[in-house]
Amino acid sequence: MASFRLIPLEGTIAQVAGFHCDGVRAGLKGDDFDVGFIYSQTPCDVVALFTTNKFQAAPLRHFHKHQIQKSNFILANSKNANAMTGAQGVADIEEIFATLTPHFDLHNPIMSSTGVIGVPLPKETILQAALQFDLKARNDIHFARSIMTTDTFEKRIGFEVHLKEGGSFRIAGVAKGAGMIDPAMATMLAFIVTDAAVPREIMEEVAKKYVETTFNAISVDGDRSTNDSLFLLANGMSGHFDAEAFAFALEKVMHHLALLIVKDGEGAKKLVAFHVTGARDDQEAKRAAKALTNSLLVKTALFGEDPNWGRIAATIGASGVACKEDRLRIAFEDVVVYDRGKILFDRQQEEAAHKVMQRPEFSIHCDLGMGRGSFTAYGCDLGYEYVKINAEYRT
Amino acid sequence: MASFRLIPLEGTIAQVAGFHCDGVRAGLKGDDFDVGFIYSQTPCDVVALFTTNKFQAAPLRHFHKHQIQKSNFILANSKNANAMTGAQGVADIEEIFATLTPHFDLHNPIMSSTGVIGVPLPKETILQAALQFDLKARNDIHFARSIMTTDTFEKRIGFEVHLKEGGSFRIAGVAKGAGMIDPAMATMLAFIVTDAAVPREIMEEVAKKYVETTFNAISVDGDRSTNDSLFLLANGMSGHFDAEAFAFALEKVMHHLALLIVKDGEGAKKLVAFHVTGARDDQEAKRAAKALTNSLLVKTALFGEDPNWGRIAATIGASGVACKEDRLRIAFEDVVVYDRGKILFDRQQEEAAHKVMQRPEFSIHCDLGMGRGSFTAYGCDLGYEYVKINAEYRT
Repeated sequence: MASFRLIPLEGTIAQVAGFHCDGVRAGLKGDDFDVGFIYSQTPCDVVALFTTNKFQAAPLRHFHKHQIQKSNFILANSKNANAMTGAQGVADIEEIFATLTPHFDLHNPIMSSTGVIGVPLPKETILQAALQFDLKARNDIHFARSIMTTDTFEKRIGFEVHLKEGGSFRIAGVAKGAGMIDPAMATMLAFIVTDAAVPREIMEEVAKKYVETTFNAISVDGDRSTNDSLFLLANGMSGHFDAEAFAFALEKVMHHLALLIVKDGEGAKKLVAFHVTGARDDQEAKRAAKALTNSLLVKTALFGEDPNWGRIAATIGASGVACKEDRLRIAFEDVVVYDRGKILFDRQQEEAAHKVMQRPEFSIHCDLGMGRGSFTAYGCDLGYEYVKINAEYRT
Repeated sequence: MASFRLIPLEGTIAQVAGFHCDGVRAGLKGDDFDVGFIYSQTPCDVVALFTTNKFQAAPLRHFHKHQIQKSNFILANSKNANAMTGAQGVADIEEIFATLTPHFDLHNPIMSSTGVIGVPLPKETILQAALQFDLKARNDIHFARSIMTTDTFEKRIGFEVHLKEGGSFRIAGVAKGAGMIDPAMATMLAFIVTDAAVPREIMEEVAKKYVETTFNAISVDGDRSTNDSLFLLANGMSGHFDAEAFAFALEKVMHHLALLIVKDGEGAKKLVAFHVTGARDDQEAKRAAKALTNSLLVKTALFGEDPNWGRIAATIGASGVACKEDRLRIAFEDVVVYDRGKILFDRQQEEAAHKVMQRPEFSIHCDLGMGRGSFTAYGCDLGYEYVKINAEYRT
């Protein structure tokens, strides 16, 4: 019996006590929102998880340089990643904050950028836009839009968590994803804020635990960005906290945002859960599941709605995990097409599997029959749109 | 000063002393050639290198089961991979050879298959077609066509090797590739035959050495098939051999066939050599170079002829090799776009790099500035055609 209850919030970040956010149009991205902020009335405990890419972008290096643990402000922009921009990239951020900090009374401001790599940050444009911020604004949608690149919809979610012993806190998140979604770390920008009175160490521990089964379990194209970041901000303003409830709610927020990112994978039409069970251990299950989400032959078969289970088997065999032909079992939802050495793939089964694949969301189950390891990875199809978007992105 | 001279052969396998080959139409692949053979008048020493995929196809398991070291016959077919077909898959091969062996006086016959995974081998159709073989035929092109799947052209090459001390031998190869070309092993079917009097151990040693820089250095889509095989057959009929000349000629044949496979990557329009230098060691150079050939974002940028060097940097950073932003150097042929911390990417450089990318073949140079490791991997672009071919392949 859970000692808490989750109620969805209609808005998200801006409905969490003490938090404000907004997006403005600086002209970086045509006349769409491209610069935004999250502001907290009181300094927050901050936890950040970053990409494993060796070329960390300037905002990440700026964060490390200033060893930020408490902050009341995140400045975000799209269209320019401020990556491969060397010492100048960090200096540009410091210059922007040299003006903004006294102007808005900021405390250890953080920057977060996404967009094209290898172009100097248009710092003057961003600074002028930021000087127009209304820190009292509560505009989730404008903030969510300001961080979008090739995303086709805003990714937001929030809950009010009611504790049985009385009291409540709120937790909400906004993310962007779309391209360069990867198999190794956060793979996008995600901002999660809460007014729970959560100790920093617990927030860090829970985030690190669930990042493995949420943001690290998704893949759009196997590429890993220089800018991937997950930020968690807690200002404690609700005065309430419960460890179990917080962990549950944070996982919900992370899982939901992660799935929205796959769903909005560049050109993707299908969200597919690859459940791998029966692996020698969880690590091998993860390896096989991630290999499936990254295989081009599997992804194009998803796009073609072709239940080509041979490609699934071949991908598992190539992934390096322990497996045997007479132990493997493959099913599209409940349609078993290969069962431990037996090919169950007549016209009727093929048609049934094809029907499953026509759905916008479905699961593929692969039981390796080698042990008790399991993992679920989330992937999407790859079609013409992905090629179109990525062949033409910069131009 | 080389002690030998290479002269290209006009035909290939069929011009090597004692070898015959042909392809016939069994009806597996519409009315195109789909079943073929290579036959040697005298038994050959055989070396085979196979895929690292754990689900090895039946022909590979058949080869292992019979521990074949000498043979005079390879039976090949396309359209059906005889993979994921369990014990029955091997039994089917044995049944075919039970009839063919006495009929043609075969010695340890070998089978090699490519095509769809997970469909029982149409053994009766293949057997009936094989019984019509004319073992005296010398028809390279029909054999080359009989192993093609989505390949758009035959892949063949051959040399006569003249030794300075007099005498000569010949070496020739035929391959198929196109889809499922992978980063870990032979990644295709390749058959190389020679009449050189080469000792088996030397042939094996040289093949294993050069597979790393040829077939293992190419990638079309990062997928690794259940059937990838490289066969080398030597019948010694020329009576001549020179270790240096043989190694040189074998590398030439393997390199040429490997590049033809990338060039004919499904839907590919560009053959790109990724030269990685300055890595901490050769292994890291290989890791970075292979990552570049497999990155979807890089491949789609190649397709779009977009010199988006940021994606190249990000891929190197994500590959896990030692690298630093202020040591990296990236050039499209001789157009340097990023030089150890300096972004050299004005309109003029961008236009020059774009011009390079419009060529059907070009090189991208990445110097990591960390050490002396180097490796060259060969990749291709990924465009709409790849998606089209792989979304519709089975249907």
